[in-house]
Amino acid sequence: MGRVYIEELGKHVGEEVELRGWLYNKRSSGKIRFLLLRDGTGIVQGVMAKGGVSDEAFAKFDELTQESAFALKGKVRKDDRAPGGFELEVTDVRIYAIATDYPITPKEHGVEFLADRRHLWLRSSRQHAVMRVRHRLIKAIRDFYDNRGFVLIDSPILTPAACEGTTTLFETDYFDLGKAYLTQSGQLYAEAGAMAFGKVYCFGPTFRAEKSKTRRHLTEFWMVEPEVAFADLNDNMELAEEFLEYIVQTVLRERGEELKVLERNTTLLQNVKKPLPRISYDEAIEILRKKGVQFEWGNDFGGTDETIISEQFDRPVMVHRYPAQIKAFYMKRDPQNPNVALALDVLAPEGYGEIIGGSQREDNLDALLGRIKQHNLPQEAFEWYLDLRRYGTVPHSGFGLGLERTVGWICGLDHVRETVPFPRMIYRLTP
Amino acid sequence: MGRVYIEELGKHVGEEVELRGWLYNKRSSGKIRFLLLRDGTGIVQGVMAKGGVSDEAFAKFDELTQESAFALKGKVRKDDRAPGGFELEVTDVRIYAIATDYPITPKEHGVEFLADRRHLWLRSSRQHAVMRVRHRLIKAIRDFYDNRGFVLIDSPILTPAACEGTTTLFETDYFDLGKAYLTQSGQLYAEAGAMAFGKVYCFGPTFRAEKSKTRRHLTEFWMVEPEVAFADLNDNMELAEEFLEYIVQTVLRERGEELKVLERNTTLLQNVKKPLPRISYDEAIEILRKKGVQFEWGNDFGGTDETIISEQFDRPVMVHRYPAQIKAFYMKRDPQNPNVALALDVLAPEGYGEIIGGSQREDNLDALLGRIKQHNLPQEAFEWYLDLRRYGTVPHSGFGLGLERTVGWICGLDHVRETVPFPRMIYRLTP
Repeated sequence: MGRVYIEELGKHVGEEVELRGWLYNKRSSGKIRFLLLRDGTGIVQGVMAKGGVSDEAFAKFDELTQESAFALKGKVRKDDRAPGGFELEVTDVRIYAIATDYPITPKEHGVEFLADRRHLWLRSSRQHAVMRVRHRLIKAIRDFYDNRGFVLIDSPILTPAACEGTTTLFETDYFDLGKAYLTQSGQLYAEAGAMAFGKVYCFGPTFRAEKSKTRRHLTEFWMVEPEVAFADLNDNMELAEEFLEYIVQTVLRERGEELKVLERNTTLLQNVKKPLPRISYDEAIEILRKKGVQFEWGNDFGGTDETIISEQFDRPVMVHRYPAQIKAFYMKRDPQNPNVALALDVLAPEGYGEIIGGSQREDNLDALLGRIKQHNLPQEAFEWYLDLRRYGTVPHSGFGLGLERTVGWICGLDHVRETVPFPRMIYRLTP
Repeated sequence: MGRVYIEELGKHVGEEVELRGWLYNKRSSGKIRFLLLRDGTGIVQGVMAKGGVSDEAFAKFDELTQESAFALKGKVRKDDRAPGGFELEVTDVRIYAIATDYPITPKEHGVEFLADRRHLWLRSSRQHAVMRVRHRLIKAIRDFYDNRGFVLIDSPILTPAACEGTTTLFETDYFDLGKAYLTQSGQLYAEAGAMAFGKVYCFGPTFRAEKSKTRRHLTEFWMVEPEVAFADLNDNMELAEEFLEYIVQTVLRERGEELKVLERNTTLLQNVKKPLPRISYDEAIEILRKKGVQFEWGNDFGGTDETIISEQFDRPVMVHRYPAQIKAFYMKRDPQNPNVALALDVLAPEGYGEIIGGSQREDNLDALLGRIKQHNLPQEAFEWYLDLRRYGTVPHSGFGLGLERTVGWICGLDHVRETVPFPRMIYRLTP
């Protein structure tokens, strides 16, 4: 007779229970009243008939408005026609709070209207589905690395040096130590971790103060970054494909209901199994040229290029060996061709673009010193990082996967703003 | 015959394998050479005798220095006297990189010397043990909430308003939207989540720009914050004690070896089982006064007070119902006594102080509006938060647990600086 959650109703068939939550909807038919209660774990229909409950309880039907908080007591009945499979034969209704003029009505609202009310918008079925996919994806990501003996090395958010220029960094005063910058990546710290623990990952918020106003950009987003000692580019690609298979298949298996709510066609997601196709940057250019795109060697792919390339495959495609000039200073050069970095990008299908970026790292001290000079970076800021090459340097590799882009891809969303509880974009810092 | 990790040696007894890692130590005895290799998953001793391997391989013993990177090939032998239980009969040695003058030698170093070399210090056995406890604790925290149907609602780091004054906030420019502040707590966002999902948690970095230079303060630390709809102060205390029991007992069970490395006396930790003692603030004052401490009602407990109180108990103690004047505006007043807030702090034993702080939240719109006025807070910044009371407000409660303090307590550390891979303190932003 205690309070239960809707997701537990299957264990209480025939019993009288209490449910607590908010009014999702209501309707009446003759002398019957239907109250749809949501409690965060599901939605269930409570049914009461005039004369079947006290007049006082029955009258509460009229008082209850959308999102009013209330409790229902009643007997759990299995009903295959009901959404969720159960119904409640109501014996009592108790009101916590009546909501007046809840702003998000069942009619269509503009996205900015909803985004301004994100704290309420999260109550909708669609946002529920996305958040539950996000949560399960995060758990799958952590499980994947935890189950393989990776050690979690949380990297710091506040970092001392503007490693790759300050233009896309958020800056803050840091006591008497000058400026601190919000991290763009935990990679350099993860590299230190890999030399200590063999294989590590970090997984936390990262920041880009980019003035990009696209459907793929957030200023604050989560990134998971594995880093493995004694791993080369091939090992990196193997890890990436096993990782993607694991996280996508886990979410498909465990969040099928949510993906149905989102009307996601999962055909291509089901293909996310290793081996993933591997093509070089040069082969990717060939694809573009065959499709009539003028593309010069040495340029980076734009969003449209990525879409054209990924459309040639039925699952994510791994593109490797990019021109060194467009990649970061810490990437190792291909011994076969010093113009090329041992980089790896993974492009998602269906126009979702780059979801993974990584590389084998430069493990040679002198090469790294030269690269730092060549990129006009302040060597002093990298002394600690250079220590990793001074004391027991080994081949090592890693990559980063952007969480929100991956949620967007799996859920089939048009815009990353729905992939995170409270999105931060160039023009949005609230609520 | 492939490459394996030390933690997997038990599956390869009698086989020839390759191990890759770094030189932890070496010694010789007559014609026998011992190489201790660490690979991040453990340490194993490789043994070779002159004549038993090629002269070339044998000679590498002399080349290898502390933290040099190398590979050992050899046959796995079970040896109960060996640390870890296995030894390697070496057949070949391959060197990746010789480390010259590794700065952290087996002799004692000062803490600042080590902290400046945090990227290398992480390789030590002691730091390994702490990081592995930290990782397992994080997993236990997430598992606890995931297994109970809580939904993960990541709260934003960049927040728009300086909710409780700017003096302890890190501030950054945010495009054309003015200033943004690094979050001190995800609670208000978690409350929005609880109204949408019933029970939620957030778990991420939080920030305090406090000029505190104590052994308990970091400027950047992780906090987990559960929030539950339809939960009162009692429910909150029940959740807190079940949570603490689960995470501490899990770490004790799964990280016993690491706690031995840290020479942690776990007697008191083993007591962390529900029920935890519950005393009111008034009862806590009684304890202080009996111990001869002059303490006036209405003051907050200092570190010494907390230690004296917690010393009366053999496990963490829950202190509830604090004077409202020293607690945050969003805490609900005790209906029995409006001078008192339905707050909850949990004090760890052994002088580790407050590890949990929480409360039942004010769910009445008018009371909350009055409190915002009384605290001179800008109402406009809280309009979205007030919406949670306008639309379906219900009793709800939650708390926050500081990760690093909890790691310090479980590991028995003197200072929080060792509880995180790269600590950030008032006087430390590097490496």
